Amino acid sequence: MKSNHIITLLTDFGLSDGYVAAMKGVILSHAPAVRLVDISHSIERHNILSGAFVLASVEPYFPVGTVHLVVIDPGVGSERDAIALRTNRAWFVGPDNGVLWKAAGQDIVEATSITSVPGFSGPISSTFHGRDLFSPAAAYLSHGGEMRRLGDPKTSILQIPFPDIRISPEGIRGQVIRIDSFGNATTNISRHDLPAPFDETRVEIGSTKLDGIVNCYADVKKGELCALIGSDELLEIAVSQGSAAEVLNVREGQEVFVFLSALESSPS
Amino acid sequence: MKSNHIITLLTDFGLSDGYVAAMKGVILSHAPAVRLVDISHSIERHNILSGAFVLASVEPYFPVGTVHLVVIDPGVGSERDAIALRTNRAWFVGPDNGVLWKAAGQDIVEATSITSVPGFSGPISSTFHGRDLFSPAAAYLSHGGEMRRLGDPKTSILQIPFPDIRISPEGIRGQVIRIDSFGNATTNISRHDLPAPFDETRVEIGSTKLDGIVNCYADVKKGELCALIGSDELLEIAVSQGSAAEVLNVREGQEVFVFLSALESSPS
Amino acid sequence: MKSNHIITLLTDFGLSDGYVAAMKGVILSHAPAVRLVDISHSIERHNILSGAFVLASVEPYFPVGTVHLVVIDPGVGSERDAIALRTNRAWFVGPDNGVLWKAAGQDIVEATSITSVPGFSGPISSTFHGRDLFSPAAAYLSHGGEMRRLGDPKTSILQIPFPDIRISPEGIRGQVIRIDSFGNATTNISRHDLPAPFDETRVEIGSTKLDGIVNCYADVKKGELCALIGSDELLEIAVSQGSAAEVLNVREGQEVFVFLSALESSPS
Repeated sequence: MKSNHIITLLTDFGLSDGYVAAMKGVILSHAPAVRLVDISHSIERHNILSGAFVLASVEPYFPVGTVHLVVIDPGVGSERDAIALRTNRAWFVGPDNGVLWKAAGQDIVEATSITSVPGFSGPISSTFHGRDLFSPAAAYLSHGGEMRRLGDPKTSILQIPFPDIRISPEGIRGQVIRIDSFGNATTNISRHDLPAPFDETRVEIGSTKLDGIVNCYADVKKGELCALIGSDELLEIAVSQGSAAEVLNVREGQEVFVFLSALESSPS
Repeated sequence: MKSNHIITLLTDFGLSDGYVAAMKGVILSHAPAVRLVDISHSIERHNILSGAFVLASVEPYFPVGTVHLVVIDPGVGSERDAIALRTNRAWFVGPDNGVLWKAAGQDIVEATSITSVPGFSGPISSTFHGRDLFSPAAAYLSHGGEMRRLGDPKTSILQIPFPDIRISPEGIRGQVIRIDSFGNATTNISRHDLPAPFDETRVEIGSTKLDGIVNCYADVKKGELCALIGSDELLEIAVSQGSAAEVLNVREGQEVFVFLSALESSPS
Repeated sequence: MKSNHIITLLTDFGLSDGYVAAMKGVILSHAPAVRLVDISHSIERHNILSGAFVLASVEPYFPVGTVHLVVIDPGVGSERDAIALRTNRAWFVGPDNGVLWKAAGQDIVEATSITSVPGFSGPISSTFHGRDLFSPAAAYLSHGGEMRRLGDPKTSILQIPFPDIRISPEGIRGQVIRIDSFGNATTNISRHDLPAPFDETRVEIGSTKLDGIVNCYADVKKGELCALIGSDELLEIAVSQGSAAEVLNVREGQEVFVFLSALESSPS
């Protein structure tokens, strides 16, 4: 795999301080030809799971040879490792706290800790590895640097559990894993878990029951609830031109149940 | 017109999810040499009029041959068309819901619906045309693709009404069309509608009367209201280093009246 | 110094309007090969000191030959000058209101006012010099333009006072100069002001006393207060995975005292 000279950035730093810009300055100092693409800097603070989810959602859409630089790192400066991972599609640089797992975990072909970066001799602040360790490492990899020169090989990295669905004769039990900024609630139940036809499917969340899975938000009236398959191919609860999170007061982790047939699911 | 390899992005997606990054990944996968410029991703959700206004404000400042990609699209997946427009200055890609009209409408030289994009064979999510249809189309046009290969020609596109001013012997009746994030209230009354000299002009909004049109915010004291000609050449109500929206509790659509002479306008 | 064709942008414009994009359009129209890097557009409105601090924090990380374009400009259109500065590392373009001082002030080798930009003949809005004067000037400098052609030389520029620390036999009196979006409170006391070893240092802010200076946030438990040296080499009060600003109700300007020895500092 050759670098395509794209480095993406994903952090929980927000955009009102200079932290992201300092990282970009470091990268451009070491890799002037690189192209920087922000994924997001508005991940909820210290929310490793949320960052992992966003990274896994967007990674497949980037061209092969991209370097993904991720700094959601509440343990910065502590014993947690800094790591670089390589799959057949991309490199990943960030803390070994699980944030890289969902996007890269199943496909890792090489993993190293990052202890120093060739050509980078500056001091390393114990509170900002994003600037002083991860950014140099990402710049180095985007310029054809070899992973094995960053540190020792890693034989395992930290995984974070993503909730599984449970399938019974009655139906599929899953949960809300992500609420986006529109207020759409994405679940861990994928299109492939669901039986066709969708119009006989009943989705239950809290005390709300939704019959049938629609095709798009505009299939229901403005303000109405619906269930549909979102752009990540996952079952999603939404309100047309509104916020399901507000209407249902839904939270991440909340249980969702899909009855496999609306007929069977009728409460007596 | 030749492409200048710039694609701008304007959405209401916010920056805390991965939606914008997924679009950028798709574009860079199909058009690696393109330059991406964010216009805004913080347009109020589903506010087509607001997006149309921002697009029209900034379009004239981009070089000829830019592709403007706009996804403010509450009707995604429904019967609304996906369209591409060409003027003598730029290409525009987005939903046919009026959002492109103000910037492109008067100057369209070619219009097509977008039903498929040459070279792009992926599935099209019914909830995310931004990623699966508009981004490929923008990438295709920025690389010299021909509009007629995207779909059928369109003979008309959806217009959204922008409010007109009414001129009477007494004065000019207009309204607030945009409140920016500083709290400045821009009206639909342009510099050219106003008689010189400006210092005899009285502007009335609600129960507030402002005598004279100042040159810049700092012409009045911090916290004071003023009327001036904003950077879009439109009459604007502002508070120096403060928010007119808060001070006046003004909303979009609110009526503004300009007396053509302060003398004539004096209430008895 | 040769331009490296990087222009950074730092404003208080926010990202929901088209103002930043209009600036980028102007720059790309005049300097198509330039690389644009956002520092921040979320500086608190009209907060010159905050912008000055962020600029000074990130400037050292950008490669030599960068143009820094700063528009935090409550006095736009008034008597305040538009200026361009050159140090041995970078160019700076913005209003002469102090916002450039902390980053460039000590190292200025050339300073001019900006009255017009060669090759740019458009009108100059009295409310948006960012678009009509500063952006053309930045584009011009990034393409090898000569500063002396922008306007008259300046022999002095406006400084804004940054608070000094006071050192006594008892200890060091400083203050909070910046609260970042994590709620970390950075002070004006630098690592070099502090005596080693750090574990005998006591930091006092309001009625709170913190013994010892830790190495990283994770050295204390989640939710606990600590003092450490932040990534700008300044003493910082923080809460691990939390907000010191909220826990301590701290504000910018609040006094901080460092006892030079924990023993001497014991009250009673």
